[in-house]
Amino acid sequence: MLDIALLGTSGMMPLPNRFLTSMLCRIKGRLLIIDCGEGTQVALKNIGWGFKNIDVICFTHFHADHIAGLPGLLLTIGNAGRTEDIVIIGPEGVKEVVESLCIIAKELPFNIIFKEIDDLDNGKIKIKDFNIEALEVEHSMKCYAYNVILKRKGKFDVKKAIKLDIPKKIWSILQKENSIEYNNKIYTDDMVLGQERRGIKISYCTDTRPVETISDFIKNADLFICEGIYGENDKIKKAKQYKHMIYSEAATLAYNGKVSEMWLTHYSPSLTNPEEFLYIAQDIFPKSYCGYDGKISSFQFIEEENK
Amino acid sequence: MLDIALLGTSGMMPLPNRFLTSMLCRIKGRLLIIDCGEGTQVALKNIGWGFKNIDVICFTHFHADHIAGLPGLLLTIGNAGRTEDIVIIGPEGVKEVVESLCIIAKELPFNIIFKEIDDLDNGKIKIKDFNIEALEVEHSMKCYAYNVILKRKGKFDVKKAIKLDIPKKIWSILQKENSIEYNNKIYTDDMVLGQERRGIKISYCTDTRPVETISDFIKNADLFICEGIYGENDKIKKAKQYKHMIYSEAATLAYNGKVSEMWLTHYSPSLTNPEEFLYIAQDIFPKSYCGYDGKISSFQFIEEENK
Repeated sequence: MLDIALLGTSGMMPLPNRFLTSMLCRIKGRLLIIDCGEGTQVALKNIGWGFKNIDVICFTHFHADHIAGLPGLLLTIGNAGRTEDIVIIGPEGVKEVVESLCIIAKELPFNIIFKEIDDLDNGKIKIKDFNIEALEVEHSMKCYAYNVILKRKGKFDVKKAIKLDIPKKIWSILQKENSIEYNNKIYTDDMVLGQERRGIKISYCTDTRPVETISDFIKNADLFICEGIYGENDKIKKAKQYKHMIYSEAATLAYNGKVSEMWLTHYSPSLTNPEEFLYIAQDIFPKSYCGYDGKISSFQFIEEENK
Repeated sequence: MLDIALLGTSGMMPLPNRFLTSMLCRIKGRLLIIDCGEGTQVALKNIGWGFKNIDVICFTHFHADHIAGLPGLLLTIGNAGRTEDIVIIGPEGVKEVVESLCIIAKELPFNIIFKEIDDLDNGKIKIKDFNIEALEVEHSMKCYAYNVILKRKGKFDVKKAIKLDIPKKIWSILQKENSIEYNNKIYTDDMVLGQERRGIKISYCTDTRPVETISDFIKNADLFICEGIYGENDKIKKAKQYKHMIYSEAATLAYNGKVSEMWLTHYSPSLTNPEEFLYIAQDIFPKSYCGYDGKISSFQFIEEENK
């Protein structure tokens, strides 16, 4: 199972009752955050999943509304008793930006491991059960969209296990662990498992113009969280100017990407009632919903039909 | 008239419904803030006095809970259309700390004038109608208490004006302006005014141990805003350890300083109901009140009795 919570849905500046855009993901009690604007730590307190298990913080880009809450969050994670390393992932320069902000948060009881997306293997990295993928998008500064994927192993294949002469004693272990040493021999899980099954895929995309590569990147996602800074189609000029998307553009990406559902977020402060224009997105992609602060959903593995 | 609003009353970290400790002061529509933790800009939005007229931002010290909200606030002030300089006052190193934080707020449409307290004339500076005084206090890092004073000119003294042969035409002008040139001669307000009258004095004091110099510094203040991180007397050991004050210590300062009233603030997150222990402060200084987010009061000049 994988749980998602929207910590905030505001763009540009935090508002009373609307925190800045941020996503929280939980797998087996461990936590990953994407973006951390001013106030994100308060939103986290409202959700109540704790601070100590935040293992990964990803940044789409370095505009203040996506990162200004970091020093306070790191201090609060420290106060929660964390001593284990935290991984921070972001565009080029992430270490310099974070260290500059942390002039007011110098003494943390844990280490920060910085990962620049350019240095990752094809934009991908696995941390605990979080399989993270990044895609460069098109904003007024370097910016990335993210996928967070929970993989699912294949089914146990008795015939294969017997054929490869795998000792029965370690069959159940190999269904959980990746490998095991037994009687001075290394056994790996692929020796007893069938093909990897469909996992759970969450896509997160803000701030950007609707570049074509996004549809492929988010393909078949269980949930696509996407910016919709304005609802009305006649705001397209302004959206283009500031390198953002309107509802109809987000919905077109969702439709082309064949995602299961889309949640809109990163609303302009001028968009006081995001639901008002939701019909525009739903006309294009019916499973469009308005994100809101504190919106939570749990995702289970889906059994695929026999082929 | 001088208006005061408490923007937040939390210490250490922002909580749902309790922003970080910060004070907003308004004189003739112009604004001064002391401290700016994460979320202060949202609290300012709640108060509704605007962003554009923020002329001065003072920092007591550089712990994150007192300054982390600055980059976001500066961007929001810029979005409100300000182009006039802003003065930022703080301990030694204020320029370096602010510039480091502003790595995510590089393009502001106004200049920042930095003032280190050590460089001020006896810890005092006047900006517009804000007469600011700073006093070093005792915290785990260099930290200052502040007074904000609205001065009041003396009464018009007809006999003095006649004696000094001041032209009648400029009498009324000299009651408003500090000086005027008239018929190639400079006239100053002290030529027509009596002794300066009692103004309005607001004192703000957090984070610190109750050092003796504070009582003199806050002497006769109309309002003393003071930290009370814990209510109970048996928390004194913890307060001493982290260089903070309990309610009874704040109240003793208020009593010795002969202030008109005291508002407690900067509560520990563990102090969920600040009112519960208010009686401890009121036993020592009856005009003790619990500060709360959004608490507002207006202060008028008080007519002194004839001496």
